[in-house]
Amino acid sequence: MTNPNPNFGVIGSGSWATAIVKMLCENVPEVNWYIRKQDVIDYIEKEHHNPNYLSAVEFDPGQIKLSSNINKVIQESDILIFVVPSAFLKKELDKITVDFTDKIIFSAIKGIVPESQLLVGEHFNKEYNIPFDNIGVITGPCHAEEVALERLSYLTIACANEGHANTLAQYLSSEYIKCNVSEDIIGTEYAAVLKNIYAIAAGIAHGLGYGDNFQSVLMSNAIREMKRFIKTCYAMKRNINDSAYLGDLLVTGYSVFSRNRYFGNMIGKGYTVKSAQMEMSMVAEGYYATNSAYEISKSFGNKKAKTPIINAVYKVLYEGKNPKKVFEKLADKLN
Amino acid sequence: MTNPNPNFGVIGSGSWATAIVKMLCENVPEVNWYIRKQDVIDYIEKEHHNPNYLSAVEFDPGQIKLSSNINKVIQESDILIFVVPSAFLKKELDKITVDFTDKIIFSAIKGIVPESQLLVGEHFNKEYNIPFDNIGVITGPCHAEEVALERLSYLTIACANEGHANTLAQYLSSEYIKCNVSEDIIGTEYAAVLKNIYAIAAGIAHGLGYGDNFQSVLMSNAIREMKRFIKTCYAMKRNINDSAYLGDLLVTGYSVFSRNRYFGNMIGKGYTVKSAQMEMSMVAEGYYATNSAYEISKSFGNKKAKTPIINAVYKVLYEGKNPKKVFEKLADKLN
Repeated sequence: MTNPNPNFGVIGSGSWATAIVKMLCENVPEVNWYIRKQDVIDYIEKEHHNPNYLSAVEFDPGQIKLSSNINKVIQESDILIFVVPSAFLKKELDKITVDFTDKIIFSAIKGIVPESQLLVGEHFNKEYNIPFDNIGVITGPCHAEEVALERLSYLTIACANEGHANTLAQYLSSEYIKCNVSEDIIGTEYAAVLKNIYAIAAGIAHGLGYGDNFQSVLMSNAIREMKRFIKTCYAMKRNINDSAYLGDLLVTGYSVFSRNRYFGNMIGKGYTVKSAQMEMSMVAEGYYATNSAYEISKSFGNKKAKTPIINAVYKVLYEGKNPKKVFEKLADKLN
Repeated sequence: MTNPNPNFGVIGSGSWATAIVKMLCENVPEVNWYIRKQDVIDYIEKEHHNPNYLSAVEFDPGQIKLSSNINKVIQESDILIFVVPSAFLKKELDKITVDFTDKIIFSAIKGIVPESQLLVGEHFNKEYNIPFDNIGVITGPCHAEEVALERLSYLTIACANEGHANTLAQYLSSEYIKCNVSEDIIGTEYAAVLKNIYAIAAGIAHGLGYGDNFQSVLMSNAIREMKRFIKTCYAMKRNINDSAYLGDLLVTGYSVFSRNRYFGNMIGKGYTVKSAQMEMSMVAEGYYATNSAYEISKSFGNKKAKTPIINAVYKVLYEGKNPKKVFEKLADKLN
């Protein structure tokens, strides 16, 4: 880190982006904040809160530098935090005309880039030549809504470069945020992606009428499946029961507020994928992640890492199979 | 197993005992059922359901042989399943005058015997000379209430003698019950005991106003603490994320119906231990387990297995320490 007082830029305007800006505002005098829509910027400048997400969070107008020009925000920041749905990431990146290869990039996106089928970190490395040393991940377990309420939450900041991870950890920590650091950028990012698929599975099961006993077995099988999956993708010494993996799975799988769980619940209750998506008018990251993870797991070959839960969700979401029958078969494979 | 069609005896009349009788009734023509109070027996004989627990479960009167004479039930059964609160076990065992050293004993009790500070299985071995080969454990994750509703649930049957475990698994399995077998009688029994302490911790945290983000970190730390504790007590190859360990922790820790979590919640909200116990008029097994587990963990020595969560719950329940302050300190130790 060349700059001892780095400038931060946040890209995105959803609930998690808003929560991250709030966390940074506890520690730095100014945050650059890119928001695509000028009317949202105008609203925040006038009303001092995001009109659509975490609207109870008040910002000091002197502390946030809003812009709908992504290039300006990138140029004025040393550390960039990307927080847009993975499905829209490429569209935003395509707008960038300035060189940003010397920036430190953190992804708080929990998804796989659909166009490249890569993790967000890998996408920045392969498509934009950002060295892995300057790429990191911010992961939970953390509902943005509880950050808004200043309820004690733990983040994990993963980066191959421990110094960068520690720097960001320092700037995100506060009375209500504790940060762990990790070197496992690939594993934590996969965990953040996979947990949304398992949350959809939990939702489908709930929609079908399965109870708490079954859910606990499903989550116990899910963490074992996640361990096999991540180990096959990238083997290193990690404890899958650390907060960034198991904790993140639990906060999503057990939350009635998770949009992925909610989406699954509708599917379990008989909605088609299309009607559930229309009903929600929100992106359930796990929907796209299911396709990506299924393709990746197929590439593992037969025995390397069995993924019965991912496969079941894939069958329901992408092959139009009957969720009741698919989950009856899945239940026979769980233990 | 000498008898190819073994006779089963169930000792206890609570919700879990009632659920186990129901499971057996799916497979065997007759179940011997010991219930202490004659008026409860009279009620069941007349109304065909338990007056106090799972009262929606109807029994075929021809299928259950009720008795308030524990010696009669023991004599007429080959396989005995004990399902009374651990605090009352000794009182029941003291009534036994017949020899039962040739019986197969399964414990569905989730606790430590206060008088001997032993796991139930160890207690039967040390105090009654039952060989370990004839002692087993029935464990969840399983709320009795969901068995009553015939919602798909998974049990783990642990016994050093795999044949005995398989036999019981066969007689408990049905359309809505799937059974795993395990050789880890010590580990599964400790898991069933410890999870109640962690459920109390979850309840205290909830009562103090901590949110879902914190709960997921607490559970993620709890499973790691449980692994260390059990490994120190009895090292063997086990996957702590199997349903009998992690699943059981989750179904208890995340359930608003868990009496241990409920008890903790009252403590977190400011009730004293005594007033919470009076208010509940039920036994929260985890209260006694906290004392036992704390004593056991002290015997580990300094570094062998740190148990910050058990210690925190102990401080609140037994040393009258302020839960808010104790949990603030605990939060600093979690990650």
